[in-house]
Amino acid sequence: MSIQYDENNVFAKILRGELPSFKIYEDDKTFAMMDIMPQTKGHLLVLTKEPAPTFFDLSKEAAEACIATAKKIAPVLMKVTGADGLVISQFNHECAGQTVFHVHFHLVPHYIGQTVAKHSHTPGNMEEIKALAEQLKQELDN
Amino acid sequence: MSIQYDENNVFAKILRGELPSFKIYEDDKTFAMMDIMPQTKGHLLVLTKEPAPTFFDLSKEAAEACIATAKKIAPVLMKVTGADGLVISQFNHECAGQTVFHVHFHLVPHYIGQTVAKHSHTPGNMEEIKALAEQLKQELDN
Repeated sequence: MSIQYDENNVFAKILRGELPSFKIYEDDKTFAMMDIMPQTKGHLLVLTKEPAPTFFDLSKEAAEACIATAKKIAPVLMKVTGADGLVISQFNHECAGQTVFHVHFHLVPHYIGQTVAKHSHTPGNMEEIKALAEQLKQELDN
Repeated sequence: MSIQYDENNVFAKILRGELPSFKIYEDDKTFAMMDIMPQTKGHLLVLTKEPAPTFFDLSKEAAEACIATAKKIAPVLMKVTGADGLVISQFNHECAGQTVFHVHFHLVPHYIGQTVAKHSHTPGNMEEIKALAEQLKQELDN
């Protein structure tokens, strides 16, 4: 199940600063940013900094760091978005919905009465996403 | 977003040994078992041993322990089932699909060409699930 890590995948480029992102948090092992094709308002991603294409390639320490970052961000995400629920998910291999082969965890806020599209393939409203990222960053800095 | 932990939820009863389960792994902080209403062959659950209804109530250490157990089990699950992909997910609050208010992570194997039902509400084939649990336990003990 192991696959080769592509140093030019879009998340690798973001981590190297070669592509822009709406970053909300970073530490030595993880990087969190808004998903620009959000399934719902507030959809964000926690990336490992390890060059691991899938969960199977990821070290235990890196996996723990991702979930610890999710722990840090999740309550802030709920507060800022006013969401009623949250799904955390992580996809491995194409048949399971993985599109970027660099390990990342999705944090998808859920709202009562609102159905969630399976996957979004259209960019969201960039101004809204940017504003939300600013709010999240501010709350996380507090 | 905090809710009261119900000591009589079905997973609490399983952890206390008051209800049976197809256990495949256990350590001091986590417990893993087959989902008896599997979305796909091999669908299993990693439970925290903390009395935490949602991810927001879970300690960082307990969250890390869950993901570490997922790391341990995931490759074995792929080997035993022959799956082509894996989704790891964790649901919080009813609107996000949570049904049992005791934190658990789903490990759902995916297979090329096979669509996955959103949620299964009918029990699977118990003999098949039991046989798979035995295989997984054996591999994990190796």
